[in-house]
Amino acid sequence: MSAQRFGDATYQVDGVFLGQTAAVVGPKEGRGPLAPWFDRVWEDEGNRYPSYEKAEQALLKEAEAMALDKSNMTWADVDLVLGGDLMDQLITTNFDARDHHRPILGIFSACASFTEGLAIASLLVGQGGPGSALVTAASHHFSAERQFRFPLELGYQRTPTASWTATAAGAATVRSQASDLRIDSLTIGRVLDWGATDPNDMASAMAPAAVDTITRHLKALGETEDDYDAIFTGDLGRFGLALAKHLASSEYQVSLDQKLHDCGEMLYDIEQQDVHNGGSGPGCSASVFSGYLAGQLRSGKLRRILLVATGALFSPKSAQQGESIPAIAHAVAVTRQEAIR
Amino acid sequence: MSAQRFGDATYQVDGVFLGQTAAVVGPKEGRGPLAPWFDRVWEDEGNRYPSYEKAEQALLKEAEAMALDKSNMTWADVDLVLGGDLMDQLITTNFDARDHHRPILGIFSACASFTEGLAIASLLVGQGGPGSALVTAASHHFSAERQFRFPLELGYQRTPTASWTATAAGAATVRSQASDLRIDSLTIGRVLDWGATDPNDMASAMAPAAVDTITRHLKALGETEDDYDAIFTGDLGRFGLALAKHLASSEYQVSLDQKLHDCGEMLYDIEQQDVHNGGSGPGCSASVFSGYLAGQLRSGKLRRILLVATGALFSPKSAQQGESIPAIAHAVAVTRQEAIR
Repeated sequence: MSAQRFGDATYQVDGVFLGQTAAVVGPKEGRGPLAPWFDRVWEDEGNRYPSYEKAEQALLKEAEAMALDKSNMTWADVDLVLGGDLMDQLITTNFDARDHHRPILGIFSACASFTEGLAIASLLVGQGGPGSALVTAASHHFSAERQFRFPLELGYQRTPTASWTATAAGAATVRSQASDLRIDSLTIGRVLDWGATDPNDMASAMAPAAVDTITRHLKALGETEDDYDAIFTGDLGRFGLALAKHLASSEYQVSLDQKLHDCGEMLYDIEQQDVHNGGSGPGCSASVFSGYLAGQLRSGKLRRILLVATGALFSPKSAQQGESIPAIAHAVAVTRQEAIR
Repeated sequence: MSAQRFGDATYQVDGVFLGQTAAVVGPKEGRGPLAPWFDRVWEDEGNRYPSYEKAEQALLKEAEAMALDKSNMTWADVDLVLGGDLMDQLITTNFDARDHHRPILGIFSACASFTEGLAIASLLVGQGGPGSALVTAASHHFSAERQFRFPLELGYQRTPTASWTATAAGAATVRSQASDLRIDSLTIGRVLDWGATDPNDMASAMAPAAVDTITRHLKALGETEDDYDAIFTGDLGRFGLALAKHLASSEYQVSLDQKLHDCGEMLYDIEQQDVHNGGSGPGCSASVFSGYLAGQLRSGKLRRILLVATGALFSPKSAQQGESIPAIAHAVAVTRQEAIR
């Protein structure tokens, strides 16, 4: 590890690079504005798999295979896998791992799992640690709906603030081998609970955690929002994005109005695609980053970004027991190398 | 990180020490043979909490508070928390984290979560990383039974091979500050699935993963079982322990007959306490290590051990869908300092 800690849990890292990334998404995501940036779009949510859970595992497997292929790596070159998903007991990540047999750390921060994985990988890769890591996250709309809410076959009415769990998987290799994209810093999140209780309004639960992590990250490194071309939260969606901007200015005196965007707000055409608040799920920020954002960085349209995936840490049982919804956000900064050399 | 990698995913680490540990257990565990080694024994499984889920969170919170207190630390001294549990979406770990507000990485390897946390902490603590980490794992018999099987109130019959999920929590501080117990090496597990399908016989599913990790660890470091006073698997129980010994000798030509023990087999008086195969759950190995094993090491009765927590990575849904049960094991070696100096 070539890391230096600043503040509570912000780390600058040296010699950690992003290899190639890949994103595989479902048909609805493939009709959204970011469609050209995804490596593969499934024509059908089930894609001939006997269950949506198996489909989710296959989605992940495809993203992994493509990320490795683009990185000129095979599974044997992967020293460590870090993966997470929404399914109870991480069955997406763990059932997929039956096939690759590589050392794996299962992680869970709900929809913030992708940046949790990137953060751990960034701290571990290099000197003495693994030379290469594969970081993954996946979600599937149909498996998530029937686990967290109701089977879609029920045709129930979604509330205006409900998010749309993305059918999407993202995978990224993190390596000590130099590339044009460098992971330069990260902040590990803490669990905040401002008392939101509506599982159909996760944005309100997650916005405080997102702003907490962003402001801690900036403060610890002595940076401002202007040190980034843009800051992307994970899946706050339309309402959450507005709330986060408001919170940042009112509670933290940080104006994120110009810089803050949200993967869940970008993944769909919110008005046309009837997704209400926007996209969510671990696969949301994982696929938007692995597809669109990595592409924008590689093409030079973005030079430095902060990815702040956000997670609502409730379970159906905790919601049924009347509990509020804790949330977390982990942040990872990615810089295009030419910009800093 | 002062780590050096050997083989696939075995790391020797320098300058990583175990601070203090604490274990809090339920009444049944408090009537078992290891009772004197636990820091606190609850008289009642519910302990006046309105739900078993809340009781599990409180059990964890007590273990954390006692580990910190014994380490002369407050929450402000904890740079990073790594925690895992069995509850869907890790609500035990995450709901507890609402109160301490420290940076946290949620981890999940089922009942192997405690050594996953110790392994990550051991790789991160020190030079540039967090100076101190708090590693936790917890489980509760009543919350686990109703999530994975049936509510206990149903009074259903347990099969002979069924394990007894322990009501137990363990917490350990891992620090760069020297102590008498050093974490010297670790191996990150990989997911194996030998086709076991009975959720009431997790030992058969987990034994291959345990032996895989133990033999990889020994081979990578050029060690034999004689380099350890004892090797402790997490929760293979009575049948699993016999199976692991058989597998080791028949498939790997490693004789573990003398050295291998199992936390789940030790936690209860199997015959008298009617626990069938033995104890299981993330809290099983976490509490046995944080209570009994750390005590044996500190008193000099053990000098070097390998703790190999084992996890069955299924969910109720995967079992209902007829899937087999993948498993994983992560290993951490702990040495009493005097022995190596």
